[in-house]
Amino acid sequence: MHSPTFAIIAGVGPGTGASIARRFAKVYPVVLLARNPSSYEAVVEEINSCGGQAVGISTDLADSNSVKSTFDQIATQYSGSVLAAAIFNCGSGFVRKPFLELTEEDYSGALASQAKGGFSFTQGALPLLLKARDISPHPPTLIFTSATASMKGSAECAAFASTMFALRALAQSLAREFGPQGVHVSHAIIDGVIDIPRTKGWKLEYEDAKLNPDAIADSYWHLHTQPRTTFTFEMDMRPYVEKW
Amino acid sequence: MHSPTFAIIAGVGPGTGASIARRFAKVYPVVLLARNPSSYEAVVEEINSCGGQAVGISTDLADSNSVKSTFDQIATQYSGSVLAAAIFNCGSGFVRKPFLELTEEDYSGALASQAKGGFSFTQGALPLLLKARDISPHPPTLIFTSATASMKGSAECAAFASTMFALRALAQSLAREFGPQGVHVSHAIIDGVIDIPRTKGWKLEYEDAKLNPDAIADSYWHLHTQPRTTFTFEMDMRPYVEKW
Amino acid sequence: MHSPTFAIIAGVGPGTGASIARRFAKVYPVVLLARNPSSYEAVVEEINSCGGQAVGISTDLADSNSVKSTFDQIATQYSGSVLAAAIFNCGSGFVRKPFLELTEEDYSGALASQAKGGFSFTQGALPLLLKARDISPHPPTLIFTSATASMKGSAECAAFASTMFALRALAQSLAREFGPQGVHVSHAIIDGVIDIPRTKGWKLEYEDAKLNPDAIADSYWHLHTQPRTTFTFEMDMRPYVEKW
Amino acid sequence: MHSPTFAIIAGVGPGTGASIARRFAKVYPVVLLARNPSSYEAVVEEINSCGGQAVGISTDLADSNSVKSTFDQIATQYSGSVLAAAIFNCGSGFVRKPFLELTEEDYSGALASQAKGGFSFTQGALPLLLKARDISPHPPTLIFTSATASMKGSAECAAFASTMFALRALAQSLAREFGPQGVHVSHAIIDGVIDIPRTKGWKLEYEDAKLNPDAIADSYWHLHTQPRTTFTFEMDMRPYVEKW
Repeated sequence: MHSPTFAIIAGVGPGTGASIARRFAKVYPVVLLARNPSSYEAVVEEINSCGGQAVGISTDLADSNSVKSTFDQIATQYSGSVLAAAIFNCGSGFVRKPFLELTEEDYSGALASQAKGGFSFTQGALPLLLKARDISPHPPTLIFTSATASMKGSAECAAFASTMFALRALAQSLAREFGPQGVHVSHAIIDGVIDIPRTKGWKLEYEDAKLNPDAIADSYWHLHTQPRTTFTFEMDMRPYVEKW
Repeated sequence: MHSPTFAIIAGVGPGTGASIARRFAKVYPVVLLARNPSSYEAVVEEINSCGGQAVGISTDLADSNSVKSTFDQIATQYSGSVLAAAIFNCGSGFVRKPFLELTEEDYSGALASQAKGGFSFTQGALPLLLKARDISPHPPTLIFTSATASMKGSAECAAFASTMFALRALAQSLAREFGPQGVHVSHAIIDGVIDIPRTKGWKLEYEDAKLNPDAIADSYWHLHTQPRTTFTFEMDMRPYVEKW
Repeated sequence: MHSPTFAIIAGVGPGTGASIARRFAKVYPVVLLARNPSSYEAVVEEINSCGGQAVGISTDLADSNSVKSTFDQIATQYSGSVLAAAIFNCGSGFVRKPFLELTEEDYSGALASQAKGGFSFTQGALPLLLKARDISPHPPTLIFTSATASMKGSAECAAFASTMFALRALAQSLAREFGPQGVHVSHAIIDGVIDIPRTKGWKLEYEDAKLNPDAIADSYWHLHTQPRTTFTFEMDMRPYVEKW
Repeated sequence: MHSPTFAIIAGVGPGTGASIARRFAKVYPVVLLARNPSSYEAVVEEINSCGGQAVGISTDLADSNSVKSTFDQIATQYSGSVLAAAIFNCGSGFVRKPFLELTEEDYSGALASQAKGGFSFTQGALPLLLKARDISPHPPTLIFTSATASMKGSAECAAFASTMFALRALAQSLAREFGPQGVHVSHAIIDGVIDIPRTKGWKLEYEDAKLNPDAIADSYWHLHTQPRTTFTFEMDMRPYVEKW
């Protein structure tokens, strides 16, 4: 593949990741990461059959060796290309349990999925994003999909809140270090139920009460197109009826 | 004028307000408010001569009677139209002084410009935005231009920080009350020097170190186009080299 | 009166203000401010009859002239004394109404009570606190009684949230300006119902579910005794069962 | 030992931990934890020689098995006693490095010390604190010593900020779960250089510019004595001249 630019979306299932993949695939070839190929195969096929370019690489984001191996593969296959955008959209790590029933594995597992996963992913992506400066049509962009739990530690959510707070810390620290170097780092706080296959059956009180993953993807694309004079670090998104 | 939809931009000078006016004028007729006609005349003329529609109405945002009179005039002239977006972009209120040199007039004047100004403006705009639901192409939108001083009270900035904190409180409260009613309320935290005529001569250490007002306007337009499933309340914007 | 040090508590009724007055009166003569003498008379009498020293001065905190006149009176009567602590504990300003039913008077009145009241009070108190450095047994202290509404703008609370956000901005700005000069400025976020005569009849679901005003007063005294090496700016207080 | 109540301080060296130990030892027998006995031996001896009671237990807070073994030992030795307070005062985890020089071990090690350490410690302490309700003279108390890095992710501090954000999330979540059960959980944000043996030689521009560990300990004691009507979750502490 010899496209001038490409994008990586880490954490692609049939929901938000797929919408982000479709949105960025309108402009860039996309590399989609998920542990199980079954998570990305349908959207890879869909994008390729619609004139876009997509490949999937099986990657366990919670396993740093798996992430490293994926970036090695990307380095080889995309050696002539420029990474325009990297999206960390890891959905896992959620545990809700009374604290004294939480096991050490629950807590460590939550930290591994988002915090350590975010660390491994950005260690791989940042060198490529730095190389993309002055070449990429927009400032190279790193976006973290986050949640309300990155801002508030609710009762019985110690594990998930810990890893989401840690992910936000990572995003802030990277924005302050790499923003001045020309890489746009953003943290998107998704607050509410997303309208994806898994939540299709959930009945909510109001119409349009679930976040639209395509609209999330549009906002990510907007973030990506901001010039370096005008970077947004953080934006929240929620349905109009969501309590906050 | 019998256009189906229109937008109001309050606080239009040669900088950010003009950029927002131009951006929204690509799609809607725009009504521009500023105390001195000299602030909006050039951009009104420019928009009209480029195929858009703009009118200016002299309004002192810090004077509730002036704001009411402007909305009366709008009600008459745009009675058959639908308000798609209202932008509060009041630049004034900044005072930096040692606290004990601050006069009561300084403090009250700061509160009048942003907090009371925002109150008067939204009292006028919200009834029109509520009427626009189900008619406007996008959810009717109310955006507040804000600043870092809405988040942090710095030394010798008691007056400006007080009014900006108050404006953020107003925006949050309106978002929580009118969001569920279908009006999109947003608070944009502009952090840094904006590249406008008044700051042209300011020499900063790095290239592209001033916010681009057209990029701010693009983000406002993006906020306006979000569907009600996916409303952003708050986003920050700053130059890549800005310390925060 | 020729006591070496004294304290001022602004906003004294039968609740928190009275508790603060009693606590500080254990060590200092206290000057208690309230609009109606009936608000402070009982506690003044109680303190004086228990071996403390208290005087009340009728003051409308929302009226800058009234506040100035009070500080003039204090300057005369306490010319040989040192102001060790000034507490702004103004309870008023709360309005809860749908935004479109809120009048300009409601909004301005709310801003007058806390934001402008806080401004007038601190303009009067800070010169006295600055003089107290190196003389007062503890760093001279300025404490603002605040509320959750200083952190969150709830629906239908635009007026109250605006003034409480503004008060917090004032407190932050003063802490950053006067802290380095040796005056301890603190902002206490009281979150919940306080157990005062007005709320005696309120039945809550759990035992001990109301804040104890004497405990609030103990925390204010603790803040006052912190050395300048170790100043607390902000602390929250809430009943153990309060949701937050 | 058959004392009715006792306290545990985890993370005791010659600095803040020792001050906290001395303060709580005025009232309770104290158990001091540190990896190396050399960290706690001097203060254990000092407390015992001054009429207090102290024991040290060698514990590696970053190792969950070590923490479990310590709590097993405590359960045996203090089976007839009541845990009045548990302080998590772990100083380690700080790493400052350009992000791309940060190793996976750096990042995991930081998470292990504060986030996982805090998890293990509170898993051990909370069952004992819950048992202390209605017996302990004050509500049983769990305090986390934290830092500015729990609120702000600075450049080149991704690892430390991640673990401190995670620790704050843990503290918030525990406060919301166990507060209503009568356990007081607090998070103390220590902002600045503490005046301890390690920093004795650091010359700062102003006098009294380092936090006094005894004053920190006094604030912890104050937190411990708050009744359940009036719990503080979070308080910051900084020298008067500290920039924030």
